[in-house]
Amino acid sequence: MRQRLVQAALGGIDCDLIFRNTTFFDAFSLRWVQGDVAVFQGAIVGLEPGLKARREIDGRKKFLVPGFIDAHVHIESSLLTPAEFQKAVLPKGTTTAICDPHELANVQGLPGIEYFLKAALKSTLDLRVMLSSCVPATSFETNGGGHLSATKLAPLKKHPKALGLAEMMNVPGVLSGDKKVWDKLKAFADRPVDGHCPLLRGKELSAYAASGISSCHESTQLGEAQEKLMKGLAVWVREGSVAKDLAALAPLLTVATSPVVGFCTDDRNPLDIAREGHIDYLVRGAIARGVPMEAAYRASAWSVARHYGLSGKGAIAPGYDADLVLLEDRESCAIESVWCKGKSVSELELPSNQTVRFGRTVKATKPEAQDLEGPKGRVHTIGVEPGKIITQRFVLNHDAAGVARLTVLERHGKNRPPANGYVTGFGTRFRGAIASSVGHDSHNLIVVGSNTDDMATALGALIDSQGGYAVTLDRQVTALLPLPFGGLMTALDAATVARKLLEMGAVCKQQGCVLEEPFLQLAFLSLPVIPELKLTDRGLFDVNKFQLIEVRAE
Amino acid sequence: MRQRLVQAALGGIDCDLIFRNTTFFDAFSLRWVQGDVAVFQGAIVGLEPGLKARREIDGRKKFLVPGFIDAHVHIESSLLTPAEFQKAVLPKGTTTAICDPHELANVQGLPGIEYFLKAALKSTLDLRVMLSSCVPATSFETNGGGHLSATKLAPLKKHPKALGLAEMMNVPGVLSGDKKVWDKLKAFADRPVDGHCPLLRGKELSAYAASGISSCHESTQLGEAQEKLMKGLAVWVREGSVAKDLAALAPLLTVATSPVVGFCTDDRNPLDIAREGHIDYLVRGAIARGVPMEAAYRASAWSVARHYGLSGKGAIAPGYDADLVLLEDRESCAIESVWCKGKSVSELELPSNQTVRFGRTVKATKPEAQDLEGPKGRVHTIGVEPGKIITQRFVLNHDAAGVARLTVLERHGKNRPPANGYVTGFGTRFRGAIASSVGHDSHNLIVVGSNTDDMATALGALIDSQGGYAVTLDRQVTALLPLPFGGLMTALDAATVARKLLEMGAVCKQQGCVLEEPFLQLAFLSLPVIPELKLTDRGLFDVNKFQLIEVRAE
Repeated sequence: MRQRLVQAALGGIDCDLIFRNTTFFDAFSLRWVQGDVAVFQGAIVGLEPGLKARREIDGRKKFLVPGFIDAHVHIESSLLTPAEFQKAVLPKGTTTAICDPHELANVQGLPGIEYFLKAALKSTLDLRVMLSSCVPATSFETNGGGHLSATKLAPLKKHPKALGLAEMMNVPGVLSGDKKVWDKLKAFADRPVDGHCPLLRGKELSAYAASGISSCHESTQLGEAQEKLMKGLAVWVREGSVAKDLAALAPLLTVATSPVVGFCTDDRNPLDIAREGHIDYLVRGAIARGVPMEAAYRASAWSVARHYGLSGKGAIAPGYDADLVLLEDRESCAIESVWCKGKSVSELELPSNQTVRFGRTVKATKPEAQDLEGPKGRVHTIGVEPGKIITQRFVLNHDAAGVARLTVLERHGKNRPPANGYVTGFGTRFRGAIASSVGHDSHNLIVVGSNTDDMATALGALIDSQGGYAVTLDRQVTALLPLPFGGLMTALDAATVARKLLEMGAVCKQQGCVLEEPFLQLAFLSLPVIPELKLTDRGLFDVNKFQLIEVRAE
Repeated sequence: MRQRLVQAALGGIDCDLIFRNTTFFDAFSLRWVQGDVAVFQGAIVGLEPGLKARREIDGRKKFLVPGFIDAHVHIESSLLTPAEFQKAVLPKGTTTAICDPHELANVQGLPGIEYFLKAALKSTLDLRVMLSSCVPATSFETNGGGHLSATKLAPLKKHPKALGLAEMMNVPGVLSGDKKVWDKLKAFADRPVDGHCPLLRGKELSAYAASGISSCHESTQLGEAQEKLMKGLAVWVREGSVAKDLAALAPLLTVATSPVVGFCTDDRNPLDIAREGHIDYLVRGAIARGVPMEAAYRASAWSVARHYGLSGKGAIAPGYDADLVLLEDRESCAIESVWCKGKSVSELELPSNQTVRFGRTVKATKPEAQDLEGPKGRVHTIGVEPGKIITQRFVLNHDAAGVARLTVLERHGKNRPPANGYVTGFGTRFRGAIASSVGHDSHNLIVVGSNTDDMATALGALIDSQGGYAVTLDRQVTALLPLPFGGLMTALDAATVARKLLEMGAVCKQQGCVLEEPFLQLAFLSLPVIPELKLTDRGLFDVNKFQLIEVRAE
């Protein structure tokens, strides 16, 4: 194949496509160069005038940059399947994504990872899969994926789309020499291993880096990120739908650091992708915050490709994949067209979802309203704050104003009784119930409500629809977005899902919910690694003490 | 092993070594950082105060930088074995070298490459081997290594010290789709492939880069080097004993380009290593020429390590190899001590040469004086210029003033008759003969002389010593440096060889030779890929016409 590229580069064969008289980005020298960019069989073959092609694009007064690479993303957080996800992000210039199927793996185990590996083979978006390292995420919750040991993960390494080991969240396990963790680190010693070490500093950070882990996308503070760079961890600057780090980290990205800084979205919903963008939003935002434009464009592609050993990706040079973004304006990253291996994304007929049998993944029995009754009297109560995944903790009367009921119901077929507790922050006038099958990281059913009848109705609706988002009032379903693929994803397209999310938000607001993003906030209320108080299917979890506690306060 | 590093980083085990209160180089952010650099079991484990170690080095007012990496070197050009080569370059701060056994491979074939792979396993210097791509170098000369096809080279890939495919000099073969060349490119598509494309520009350079080749160390002009960077070829700036490119290329190396620029020596003799230095000489010279110091230090290690996928090399960070250079002064790259995987190089007892049976590689029969008589009358004459490997061409009378006799004698056992010609440039008063078994790239015997008797004596001496450098006068050997290892290398140490080279130079001068480096110049007179006129064992070669021609002019 490459031999044909050489012939085309020499002019012996006509090229497929030429961007004439364009200004293209040189990711190696951080320069903008005037030239013709010629493409043949999906690869760039020439940068000089004199070649012929079947198709020409007028590149005058426009700028050609390498297609963007998302350094770390959970596609499940878009609620979309990989087939629909790519339709949402390709027009935003993201032509490569390095994904971690952590959510589906916690629901389904190995088949969840294999689903993404298989999807990656059929994807136009160049999808690379990091193999999920933390299934289960903790031992204080029940997942459906069981324990994915090193022995189970290692054979997947040979899949052509498998890249390395995904975010190693078990920092204590790395530092203390936990055998299960180290079996994985050893099995992936010859591959990139992603880190996940929020706020880690000093000796602990040195120790974590000494393990061979080579990136982190969890920095929220500038000094933290600088220390990580110094200790050899590439820093992926994240701007998700909940976690937003660009403002704090923009000063990190300079010409000097650009080879070791990249961009990622981690968790980003289709509404934000549609309204704000994807990696383009990070490029735009970085430049607006004073990052040198050339450093931002290098970080958006080449630096990440180089980190993960994706040779032939992330630059405009002969032999490189013709993943290209034609910009009307480079400062504002205003996209005119996107090209994937030389094909115009807007002209591609991207395939619909493959037929995949997910089977039933919501295996809970419908509860009765009385099963959802929590203890009465003085109770430990989770305090939700808008836009934060860290919670507060209070001791309140169970029937005080603003206190809502919260239940997590195990849904992986173990038939555990519901765990019932209390929460504040959804509003003093909140009525009905809001339920979801997306609850990090084990994705049991979680429901918040003003009364147990509406909560039971909402849970029943989710069990019927095999997962999703549900809102109920007066024992009626007032809004429903089914997510039947693992209880996490829908076969619907991004625009429909975005519209649905807007509608559901409006219904929640009508029912008195004061949170802007009730489903995103619910999704983190069962995550037992983020302080201070969380509710898993096993009960109320005190994150600081790292143990389960009684709901009733002494 | 890494698990122990983590324990040491946390302070749970005492470290082996700490550089206290030093200023170390952060290759990721191009900063200088104050700190303690702690080493355990050959790796860096900490950058902060508070750790203990069995040994402490006072780092105050000193600078710690990563050990240098030579991106491309033919160790044979040092005349030293790998065991002695490391003793010469380690004290100069070079702790990793990426070598290409091109010379020995042309003499011996696969066993020549295997010799270096085996030596690399025992070397303290971290020696990585690129597998020689051009054996034979051309079809206009006789080598001893035969043809190293893709089928022969590919099995060596799995050797732990084998890195990729060495400099692909056959540019026309790459561009024209030569099957033997492409078989090699395909066999090494998953590994780094080094380029070699002096002066290549425009479409031809694009085509060469599109083949998947990813570096070049042959740039001599700034514009050429800039174009190579833009086209995705990493540029290794070379400063050898003959080819010296730093002055021309220094402006290439900036903070922006530093991730894709490195340093190499290619061919450097022990005299220059002793007098000027090795990669440290390039660092020093680059800074003196205005290269930002931090860009120079990044290029001296990290950029090359990253290019070749040597993870854990080239930076001072936890988990990285403790290959370190402690500097008294960073601007002048003044070295105080060098550390290889945490061991002081000056304290190491480096092993002597392994016992290797090279066998007889100089298999020529001693010629009689009359065998070395060339044609008489008007003759095509090679014009040597001091310090250049490109030659001129003249038509002169064979007995004109300043015309010396030149003979190349095939030595690989094929018993070809000597090829006799003429050369100018050694001086009008030059007497006797100078002979060498180092003659790129096939390393046949080459001798220049004022008369056939002294030439025959010199060739006889080389056949007796199984290769080397010889000088004769009045049928007596006046100076001799045996190079019995493949006719290329000696078991002697660097200092002895350097002294020998000085002595031999003095003898040549006494005998009227006006060239500063007669042996280096001789070594390139048989290389048929450098214009304009060369002499191989097959006869006089017109490089421009790319064919053999008669010595006698019409």
